[in-house]
Amino acid sequence: MIITLLTDFGIADHYVGVMKGAILFVNLDTKIVDITHEIPSHDIEVGAFTLFAAHQTFPAGTVHIAVVDPGVGSARRPIAVAGGDHFFVGPDNGLFTYIYDYKPGARVFHLTNENYFRPRVSATFHGRDVFAPVAGALAKGVALETLGEEITDYVRLERLRPKRRDDGALEASIIHIDRFGNCITNITRNDLSDDAIARGVRVVIDAHEICLFRRFFAENDNTRGELFAMWGSAGFLEIAMFCDSAANLIGAQRGQSILVESSKSKAQSLT
Amino acid sequence: MIITLLTDFGIADHYVGVMKGAILFVNLDTKIVDITHEIPSHDIEVGAFTLFAAHQTFPAGTVHIAVVDPGVGSARRPIAVAGGDHFFVGPDNGLFTYIYDYKPGARVFHLTNENYFRPRVSATFHGRDVFAPVAGALAKGVALETLGEEITDYVRLERLRPKRRDDGALEASIIHIDRFGNCITNITRNDLSDDAIARGVRVVIDAHEICLFRRFFAENDNTRGELFAMWGSAGFLEIAMFCDSAANLIGAQRGQSILVESSKSKAQSLT
Amino acid sequence: MIITLLTDFGIADHYVGVMKGAILFVNLDTKIVDITHEIPSHDIEVGAFTLFAAHQTFPAGTVHIAVVDPGVGSARRPIAVAGGDHFFVGPDNGLFTYIYDYKPGARVFHLTNENYFRPRVSATFHGRDVFAPVAGALAKGVALETLGEEITDYVRLERLRPKRRDDGALEASIIHIDRFGNCITNITRNDLSDDAIARGVRVVIDAHEICLFRRFFAENDNTRGELFAMWGSAGFLEIAMFCDSAANLIGAQRGQSILVESSKSKAQSLT
Repeated sequence: MIITLLTDFGIADHYVGVMKGAILFVNLDTKIVDITHEIPSHDIEVGAFTLFAAHQTFPAGTVHIAVVDPGVGSARRPIAVAGGDHFFVGPDNGLFTYIYDYKPGARVFHLTNENYFRPRVSATFHGRDVFAPVAGALAKGVALETLGEEITDYVRLERLRPKRRDDGALEASIIHIDRFGNCITNITRNDLSDDAIARGVRVVIDAHEICLFRRFFAENDNTRGELFAMWGSAGFLEIAMFCDSAANLIGAQRGQSILVESSKSKAQSLT
Repeated sequence: MIITLLTDFGIADHYVGVMKGAILFVNLDTKIVDITHEIPSHDIEVGAFTLFAAHQTFPAGTVHIAVVDPGVGSARRPIAVAGGDHFFVGPDNGLFTYIYDYKPGARVFHLTNENYFRPRVSATFHGRDVFAPVAGALAKGVALETLGEEITDYVRLERLRPKRRDDGALEASIIHIDRFGNCITNITRNDLSDDAIARGVRVVIDAHEICLFRRFFAENDNTRGELFAMWGSAGFLEIAMFCDSAANLIGAQRGQSILVESSKSKAQSLT
Repeated sequence: MIITLLTDFGIADHYVGVMKGAILFVNLDTKIVDITHEIPSHDIEVGAFTLFAAHQTFPAGTVHIAVVDPGVGSARRPIAVAGGDHFFVGPDNGLFTYIYDYKPGARVFHLTNENYFRPRVSATFHGRDVFAPVAGALAKGVALETLGEEITDYVRLERLRPKRRDDGALEASIIHIDRFGNCITNITRNDLSDDAIARGVRVVIDAHEICLFRRFFAENDNTRGELFAMWGSAGFLEIAMFCDSAANLIGAQRGQSILVESSKSKAQSLT
């Protein structure tokens, strides 16, 4: 079985290697796949987006460990989640909000069965002592019910979703800026319909207004230097430029607010 | 079977994880190996060098996916290549030029059989939708002829090779600067013979002249601060210093021109 | 069997991919796990710490390749080490000092049997030509005695250990600063007893005095901005802050000296 890893540990320290060892120690048959270890330190929102975007292509049954965990050692609960034929293991701090939102019927378990932890659980490194061995057990076929108790009061981050204003406009934000300078927003097709886009929509970021929607980057090779919006590969709306960094042009920041409104004089619903 | 990955996606985003999932989705028995994801964005030349240098030690039959693809979504063709007992999958933009040059008899196929793509091919992410599943199929033993039609008009980048001037000198360039500051040129033993080196050769970069050739870094432990040329581990000529960065001393840039000429008064052939 | 990789090669170049190919060329059944390739160039001390900290969770029999090797091509010996149920392969330059210190009975072998090297050993890349194929052989079960001769005059770096002054205080140093700004010292429980900590201990770094010892990061959620000492997950004493970078506050550097002394008027032994 496959176990993926997503953390904010970086790749220079020993932490990622230690977790891989702890997985293989309990389950030598597993295939470990790095998603990324470059989530900005303690940035749960980027972690939540990247996990959701990355997990979608993996086969059913894959176990995803996600550790962006500023509260390690405090009372926050370690959890495992079954959602959309995948498993997720990590801290109960909202990191799995997109799984809860887009994989209806997800079930969440508080990890309490210490038989599946490492013998001595440290206060500082649950990635090694709790999440790695529990993921190894899940990949072996141990049932979630064996690992802990189902809970319903798990943490869901409301701030990850766009808000609709009374005039129908969407208040959203940039949840990730990728290496190419594409600005990925938290807007999905649930929030903004293709009909609304066809009727005319304007994306406002700071002093910039974007009215052009494209299907792909190189749709018009001749037009460089122009901002456009498109549905990104993960299903979120992105602001991009062809062969250039939209983020640099805009001076965009992770977390920055954007507004999506009808470009007609009278505001209309965008869904 | 082994599938390697080389991209310019960086390791902070979800893209690499998504590709790994897409490979494992069609072929769970494969061993995925990262070459690098830190090719400078859209820099096909560095990609071509790094792929060629890295692939050489892998066992016969290895499938190498390479994605440095500024033209994704445009008309550039997706291809698979058989060369020197290895397979290569990626865009037809010159990324495989060194394979064509140094593995005579390479065969190139335009990937047209959509049965081996993911069900919905996006315009923006062929790494996930075309290259990953096709590589998974190749690693399973699917024949190249099944995946598309053989072509002969594939893209080969002439600029990757050094040019010989009428006076016998070589006009070459720095195709990569590694982490240790070694400046790797596009010159191979095909371009510069050991006899020519023995007769005396001078490498000119900007205001610097290098006349010293060495067999390895620590050949003379006492002499730091001195530039020298040597055949690098990938078979290309490198400009280096012992325990220091040649690139810093020279102020070298990727792509910078260099000249190699006989150090005798009368220019002689270097081959 | 598992083979781990720890190097100072970085992840942008072809070197790591080349080594993975060279391992798989001789042993296709192995599971290759990256520890890190971001050891600072030629920094043997950080390499020694990271290897020791990372290897501990892996199952018995794991083969760890470590290449931080400023002397490649010189007379320094290639070695393989059996210590604490694990194997280690790399240059004889002190990289395995912590293994020698904390895994009593470690045995060290000078790699001399060229039958287990790649056919043509280059002067510059022993990672590919010596360490990778030898590790592949070890993972296949080839005995250390077959690979070379046992030696006892291997290199052990005295400077990696803290020194006790006549007045009982410990002169130690920061051997690693991690991504979160935690300053990891070279002090273990062998050097500083829990009794001594209970009696009162002061850690002095530059102008900073740290008297607070904690069990974990979030022990007191309300107190940000306060430096404290704790036993890190690898068993070494760390200077840390909750949700902030201790290294930034202190202006700490890798290699910086620290002093640990009794906080009582009369110095006492710390062990």
